[in-house]
Amino acid sequence: MTDPIRITYRLHPRDEAAEALARRIALEQTVELPDGCYPEHIEREIVGRVQVVRSVGERGVLATIDYPGTVIGREVPQLLNLVFGNVSFFPEVEVVDLELPSSLDDALPGPRFGIDGLRAAVGVTNRPLACTALKPVGLTSRELAQRCTAFARGGIDVIKDDHAVTDQRSAPFRDRVERCQEAVRNANGDDGRTLYFPNVSAPFDEAMERVDFARSIGCRGVVVSPFLTGLDMLRWLAQESGLMVLAHPSGGGGVVRGGQGVAADVMFGLLLRVCGADGVIFLNVGGRFPVGEAECLAIARRLREPGRRRPAMPIPGGGVEVDSVARWIGAYGRDVMLLIGSSLYAQGPLEPATRALMRELRGHGDG
Amino acid sequence: MTDPIRITYRLHPRDEAAEALARRIALEQTVELPDGCYPEHIEREIVGRVQVVRSVGERGVLATIDYPGTVIGREVPQLLNLVFGNVSFFPEVEVVDLELPSSLDDALPGPRFGIDGLRAAVGVTNRPLACTALKPVGLTSRELAQRCTAFARGGIDVIKDDHAVTDQRSAPFRDRVERCQEAVRNANGDDGRTLYFPNVSAPFDEAMERVDFARSIGCRGVVVSPFLTGLDMLRWLAQESGLMVLAHPSGGGGVVRGGQGVAADVMFGLLLRVCGADGVIFLNVGGRFPVGEAECLAIARRLREPGRRRPAMPIPGGGVEVDSVARWIGAYGRDVMLLIGSSLYAQGPLEPATRALMRELRGHGDG
Repeated sequence: MTDPIRITYRLHPRDEAAEALARRIALEQTVELPDGCYPEHIEREIVGRVQVVRSVGERGVLATIDYPGTVIGREVPQLLNLVFGNVSFFPEVEVVDLELPSSLDDALPGPRFGIDGLRAAVGVTNRPLACTALKPVGLTSRELAQRCTAFARGGIDVIKDDHAVTDQRSAPFRDRVERCQEAVRNANGDDGRTLYFPNVSAPFDEAMERVDFARSIGCRGVVVSPFLTGLDMLRWLAQESGLMVLAHPSGGGGVVRGGQGVAADVMFGLLLRVCGADGVIFLNVGGRFPVGEAECLAIARRLREPGRRRPAMPIPGGGVEVDSVARWIGAYGRDVMLLIGSSLYAQGPLEPATRALMRELRGHGDG
Repeated sequence: MTDPIRITYRLHPRDEAAEALARRIALEQTVELPDGCYPEHIEREIVGRVQVVRSVGERGVLATIDYPGTVIGREVPQLLNLVFGNVSFFPEVEVVDLELPSSLDDALPGPRFGIDGLRAAVGVTNRPLACTALKPVGLTSRELAQRCTAFARGGIDVIKDDHAVTDQRSAPFRDRVERCQEAVRNANGDDGRTLYFPNVSAPFDEAMERVDFARSIGCRGVVVSPFLTGLDMLRWLAQESGLMVLAHPSGGGGVVRGGQGVAADVMFGLLLRVCGADGVIFLNVGGRFPVGEAECLAIARRLREPGRRRPAMPIPGGGVEVDSVARWIGAYGRDVMLLIGSSLYAQGPLEPATRALMRELRGHGDG
């Protein structure tokens, strides 16, 4: 098989040999028919080919299966189908690695901007970045814009809409985005570089219009929840919108579930980068969610490791506080954008809280 | 709170009281801020309101939370965000019930055709229906069309593309759909009523075009994998395409995961019906997947139970064989469409196998 899509699974076989389970996966994810119920050339050309099956002791069995690139065409939904389609219902299977052939590079070029593009846009080369979430849902456009003013005056790099803020009556999309973008522009003045990224997670037939609007009034980027809208919207945004794109993990907890599904680093690191996210928000250790530090670092590694696609910015969120900035920079390194929401809001006035945060961050630059 | 969206969770609290966990969910799914970090009116108007928390012994704690309809606007991605957004990362939480206010009926009217519409289209009022999957991926359009001919001559009610068949080089979408639709039309002759439903799971910016094409050449319905494309495509198809829509569960295994996530009957029964599926394919007990009979029957119940939206057709797939038709009709009743794939293919020539299946099914009509 030339140019295969190579998927490595961790298996915990129950009532069958690991080899039999691997073969079952190879069939399920391609022909979805029992052995022999298809022409012989399909076996050679289409059926996943089990390459290696090896025990790793208590940590299960690793099985590598090669699939022909042709089964996904050039389509993200089919890539997702291959990686996490029917096999998502197999509780004894976890996807732990994925290698895509270079023949898919044109269809899936990855981030358009990546870390360097984000840094260039905010004019910061030598320190970690910071972003915050604009919330809560229920405030008016005017109130949200006031918060933008405070964050921008405080010097934050990026303000992104909360994933729960979309097109509610309290702050309709166009009205909010226009006011917030204007507030940030005014607060920036001549030398500020704060960017405002509206949330374009939207109904299927309204998303393009919202993206067009955001671009038309000068937004340089957007945030989207691909597990709510469909992952291919991310690919489309990266390829077609001309905007920077941050991915939010809302709804993604079903894909990664510790020992089943898709490993968190593969999903939030590798796959979202492949789909074109310039930055990926993921749940940080120590926050409100039960994730471990190794998992977080693995996501960051996948986002930044050398490869044929631009590195994407890790954006850990949850549990990041002004007081713990040094700790997280120690863990993630300098190429990170810390997402600090609740901790700023909890301090009361947003502008001085943001200013203190940015002062702390500037202490971690190289220069 | 008038007209709330009411969600019931089954909780297995770990290090906190159930009431504290319920309050944490109510905050996480709305303001996403700690207590007090938002204006007081937001607490009244936006924050989820914990209604009831009661222990059900070893089966955990049931907590009901009311959310204002305004938080989701009229949008499916935000409904999904509310039901399964950040809370998808809470391992101790499962969504076990959902009630939508009538104020959302216009935005989410449910199936356009439903069971009656599907029955009318295939001209069958008095027996269970049968559908099959057109596969495997890798065959040419001509080969797939030949299979359509055999299935239609055998008298099957619906032929749907396999979820892995989309726009591969071996059978490009337009070429395949045109040939298959023509094959079915020819095989139908004057009195056949077989329908062919192509798979319109597609890249974000190509889906509408594929749907238009399918309709333009006379297809009456389509199949889509909403967990791959995004759930809102289902709503859009139901409201805007004029076609019947079947939902395929590929990729949905991450949402339902037994005791976590969203209960299978809520996801595949209630929510897919709300989103507009006329028929829902779900994994049948006894097939290749570890699902229980109670779960399958609960999905069917949710799809068909009386309500403000049209009943949708349960389509159990996997483990349904010609020999077990009577058993499944006994379990699901007459308003069911049995999905029989592998078992037909395994018999060799498709036309006589299909004919035998349909003969068996006709024995289960009322008249």
